[in-house]
Amino acid sequence: MELYEKKLTENKVYSGRIFDVYSDDIELPNGKTSKRDWVKHNGGAAILCLDKENNVYLVEQYRYSVGRVVLEIPAGKIDKGEEPYNSAIRELEEELGFRAEKIEPLGVILPTVGYVSEKIYLYLATEYDVVKQHLDEGEFVNIVKMPLSELIEKIENFEIEDAKTIIAVTRYILTKNKQ
Amino acid sequence: MELYEKKLTENKVYSGRIFDVYSDDIELPNGKTSKRDWVKHNGGAAILCLDKENNVYLVEQYRYSVGRVVLEIPAGKIDKGEEPYNSAIRELEEELGFRAEKIEPLGVILPTVGYVSEKIYLYLATEYDVVKQHLDEGEFVNIVKMPLSELIEKIENFEIEDAKTIIAVTRYILTKNKQ
Repeated sequence: MELYEKKLTENKVYSGRIFDVYSDDIELPNGKTSKRDWVKHNGGAAILCLDKENNVYLVEQYRYSVGRVVLEIPAGKIDKGEEPYNSAIRELEEELGFRAEKIEPLGVILPTVGYVSEKIYLYLATEYDVVKQHLDEGEFVNIVKMPLSELIEKIENFEIEDAKTIIAVTRYILTKNKQ
Repeated sequence: MELYEKKLTENKVYSGRIFDVYSDDIELPNGKTSKRDWVKHNGGAAILCLDKENNVYLVEQYRYSVGRVVLEIPAGKIDKGEEPYNSAIRELEEELGFRAEKIEPLGVILPTVGYVSEKIYLYLATEYDVVKQHLDEGEFVNIVKMPLSELIEKIENFEIEDAKTIIAVTRYILTKNKQ
């Protein structure tokens, strides 16, 4: 069966700083009409950062939506008109205080396709200069440095629940094994 | 630094069928106030289904929020008051037409912690009876059966972008390697 859903009427129901929300009228493959509620987000960029000794740099951050501190790789929202690559370099400097000239792509993920448009672009940084952390106003994070092997163990134990962190590490290992 | 964000005022700005949206006033660790926009979702359950010949059963579905067909493991929203385990069993029967008595947990993921409350509960099904697919009204999916090795290849090539699918397969392999 040909799968599609055609937009009939676009209805923006909320306009926010991080995302907008729509409740659109659509046409289904059988010609009937339905509603689709969805969240429009400009996309995210996240970066796995490794030093020469194979330590990884993570951030601990209170995540209000899940009501607790989450351990994750540095990440942030892509600004309007910004290239994902440049967002990742910017977040690396803001959250860790590391300035990279060059980073490597680790593909894209769709975190929750059922109702969110966000794509998260993943990158790897291994070459950078240490400069100074400069967080956005209202942003509070603790930097956590650990051996990559320890992070892999936490992933194997299902202790890491943040999707982008698990997939960035998985893809890094897959890429390295191919070389 | 102690990381926390305290809710001061809860403001529901949208109430939908799949999720609600809030724009809360909060207190930051430095005592200042700010806003947090977030999406409240009751959680999802997703299931990696394998047969005796090591074939995996996926679904192709048009995902309106990303504007294209996505290949993913069967999944759905947890109904209010429903156990994640039972949601996964229900989705397996609705989307694939397979009835399982027992499934195994593959942990939890947080798909996009920055602004969504959703937790996705992952499961593995290897024992089931073939009954009949019965999709929700307005739901259209094609079932795609392929060797697990082919799906792993697609994950290795970064061709699979759906986060829950990548992580369910990764965790299944990790669990199997431990046995």
